[in-house]
Amino acid sequence: MSMRILGIDPGIAIVGFGVVDYTGGKFHVADYGQVTSPAKMPVPARLKLVFDDISYVIEKYKPDEVAIEELFFNTNQKTAINVAMARGVLIVAAQNAGLSLSEYTPLQVKQAVVGYGRAEKEQVQQMVKLILGLNEVPKPDDAADALALAICHAHSAVRL
Amino acid sequence: MSMRILGIDPGIAIVGFGVVDYTGGKFHVADYGQVTSPAKMPVPARLKLVFDDISYVIEKYKPDEVAIEELFFNTNQKTAINVAMARGVLIVAAQNAGLSLSEYTPLQVKQAVVGYGRAEKEQVQQMVKLILGLNEVPKPDDAADALALAICHAHSAVRL
Repeated sequence: MSMRILGIDPGIAIVGFGVVDYTGGKFHVADYGQVTSPAKMPVPARLKLVFDDISYVIEKYKPDEVAIEELFFNTNQKTAINVAMARGVLIVAAQNAGLSLSEYTPLQVKQAVVGYGRAEKEQVQQMVKLILGLNEVPKPDDAADALALAICHAHSAVRL
Repeated sequence: MSMRILGIDPGIAIVGFGVVDYTGGKFHVADYGQVTSPAKMPVPARLKLVFDDISYVIEKYKPDEVAIEELFFNTNQKTAINVAMARGVLIVAAQNAGLSLSEYTPLQVKQAVVGYGRAEKEQVQQMVKLILGLNEVPKPDDAADALALAICHAHSAVRL
């Protein structure tokens, strides 16, 4: 079994992404990084930018499946609305490419990567580095989170 | 001056839309209605359906400008996230068509249509019917809200 997974950590200012090939139980990182939109830009234009850029990532790396983080409300309602709008846009970009999409909570991701749902961010990042055989912890944090999502999806998909 | 305005009342289950021509201070309704997605369908598929259907409405009626309601949080967080995601998707559909987009609060809409920010829903609907010269109150409520948004935008745009 071989599959290419695109992990997406949703956001409006920064969208983390990680492209991981999972073949015969082994991981290979194809790429990771971020899609950003400037805070000064009007929100509709930011959403369009996020949509276009993630669509470009999808077209470039042609993943088989997409894993995206579930959204939780934080105390800042305006931020929460913007992130939710961006998340909707990211989902439609994946759907436009005909990709199957799985959603995971932060708890599920930590459980899958560290084996412990309350793990610290640093522990998750160290495990991502180790599991993917990287020389350093991937930066920015959003990209590390996206790679963690891809690992979580690989492990979940295998369990099915 | 003549412009065709698409009003959009965002949602995930029901998106109200109203297409209004505003020429020399007079309104003409080109169409109104709703775009829907079934509650049983997975959310990503619902977002894609909303995106495709509103894109179709935009392509069919070729509006010059889009007016969309601003989002407020309600007590149901799950619903709020879904509506926010759908709103992001609707905005990108408008952006993909290169349309300028304006956002109005319910208060602004009521002020523009009834002249009173705390007007009841029924008052708004009666004024929409009157202003647009319709034979009856437009149904569903979401379409009436979308037409009210279009009226609000026409009045705001003229004021600029």
